[in-house]
Amino acid sequence: MRALLIEKGQIRIAEGRQEPARPQGWALIRPRLIGICGTDLELLRGYREFKGVPGHEFVGDVLEADSPELIGRRVVGEINIGCQNCSRCRSGLQGHCGRRRALGIDGIDGCFADRFVLPAGNLYVVPDEVSDERAVFTEPLAAAFEIPEQLHIRPGMRIVVLGSGKIGTLCAWVLAKVAGRAALVGHHPEILERVRYPGVDTMVPESDLADADLVVDATGSASGLESALRLVRPRGTIVIKSTIAGRHEISLTSLVTKEITVVGSRCGPFRQALTALATGDYPVERLVDGRYPMRRAADAFRHAAARGALKILVSTEE
Amino acid sequence: MRALLIEKGQIRIAEGRQEPARPQGWALIRPRLIGICGTDLELLRGYREFKGVPGHEFVGDVLEADSPELIGRRVVGEINIGCQNCSRCRSGLQGHCGRRRALGIDGIDGCFADRFVLPAGNLYVVPDEVSDERAVFTEPLAAAFEIPEQLHIRPGMRIVVLGSGKIGTLCAWVLAKVAGRAALVGHHPEILERVRYPGVDTMVPESDLADADLVVDATGSASGLESALRLVRPRGTIVIKSTIAGRHEISLTSLVTKEITVVGSRCGPFRQALTALATGDYPVERLVDGRYPMRRAADAFRHAAARGALKILVSTEE
Repeated sequence: MRALLIEKGQIRIAEGRQEPARPQGWALIRPRLIGICGTDLELLRGYREFKGVPGHEFVGDVLEADSPELIGRRVVGEINIGCQNCSRCRSGLQGHCGRRRALGIDGIDGCFADRFVLPAGNLYVVPDEVSDERAVFTEPLAAAFEIPEQLHIRPGMRIVVLGSGKIGTLCAWVLAKVAGRAALVGHHPEILERVRYPGVDTMVPESDLADADLVVDATGSASGLESALRLVRPRGTIVIKSTIAGRHEISLTSLVTKEITVVGSRCGPFRQALTALATGDYPVERLVDGRYPMRRAADAFRHAAARGALKILVSTEE
Repeated sequence: MRALLIEKGQIRIAEGRQEPARPQGWALIRPRLIGICGTDLELLRGYREFKGVPGHEFVGDVLEADSPELIGRRVVGEINIGCQNCSRCRSGLQGHCGRRRALGIDGIDGCFADRFVLPAGNLYVVPDEVSDERAVFTEPLAAAFEIPEQLHIRPGMRIVVLGSGKIGTLCAWVLAKVAGRAALVGHHPEILERVRYPGVDTMVPESDLADADLVVDATGSASGLESALRLVRPRGTIVIKSTIAGRHEISLTSLVTKEITVVGSRCGPFRQALTALATGDYPVERLVDGRYPMRRAADAFRHAAARGALKILVSTEE
């Protein structure tokens, strides 16, 4: 089969690669559409000294599974695979299992291939009314839904989202829906115009952002956290939504003097994201900046890495 | 009157200094006993380019006040003085007023003097059963009580306190009382022996500290936060209890991947601290490492700055 391979900072299509074996309890999946995530770009840049097949945002068809009802269904899937034996896995926290693997990121080949495998328990059948192009956003939209899972978001809260990339935009949409309003701060006017959504304010002057109850840092940079510490009110909350890789010089004095709460936030609930997509809400299609066939996946990665690019999709069917 | 003066990193007793004027609504106080806090040592080292009279931990007698009932009473006092006009002051958060002053730290002379002034609303009358030596610990003990104010501390939680200085010890005591147990981690075996308290485990091997529900960082260093990020369980909580001044290079990756909550924690509730001291609980006297007369206050500061020193008190009556 074909698969996309990352090795030593290079990316290429490998032909004639062996299909993955399907362990008991797992499903063999043929992806239809795959999203390129910021993490995939980090892996290409050398994060975790990654070597293998990337990809974790997908919608695809189940080819083989233990349960006949699952075969032929269109699915999306959670990316973390726990050991299933430790106390965290047994309490439903396999995303925090100390021996977890993560699809296309750590310990298991990802979905940029003609076939890949994932435990059947990780899969969610996609309702018919959700198109492939919307379903492939389940994983990042779920990450945005993680914020109201972790925090009590109240209508009327003053919310600021820093970073108008894919994840920042999805967070602003979800939070504006729950709280009524959310300010989205970004540097690209054309993107801010494209990601308009009821309740999302994109042109708020910096002076009106101060004293926020909640600041979501989706910039992926340490300076984003410093901006958040400056904008949040005393006793307010900051959510760090994007991984800040590496070591950074930062002042944490105001975290204590203002008694701020900082919350790290990662993967989120697939069920809620799929339900929201099925209602037709959240115009995720508008975030798509390009669609490439699998044989041009390297071009797709280059496009995704370009400044200001939002979501790039790769189709295995073309 | 006499007052202790910090100027350009030097400390000296100034004689013949003018007594402070007492504004309406304020009290004129003669301190009995004053504690040297880590912040005082920071001010001497140049923090905030401080110049003036330090001191904010005191027990003293009210000499003058608007209300006759307050005159002659023995009091302790909260250190933050808000503007009383802004929305934060009106909602009882004068400690977070943007124009606040802080006794002996910012904008107003402190208590290392024969007389000082503080708003009457900041004062708490000390119950007769609380000795001067115990009452002077109200402010730091209140700071420890701030943690169960901010977080839901449940019996049986796995709690680790990093740093066996004054504030770390008081936090371990308060948390062991609420949760049943707390591990206290420090580098001085003789101090760990001295600060023994029911439920406080001081000799826990590092391997048994991992996977804590709550880690309190009272080390005052950025490396303390990194240790805390390592020890806390996924989705656990870190409280930063001591100000980390300056900029530090730090990795915050695990904050996101482990979905940690970090809470900054500062001053706390005086009422609860005084009530606890009145019951005879919390053997704060054991933390006293030295007691100096006012004329030897500079020696007292040197002693307080010595490695492993706990609380140093200065008496104005000797």
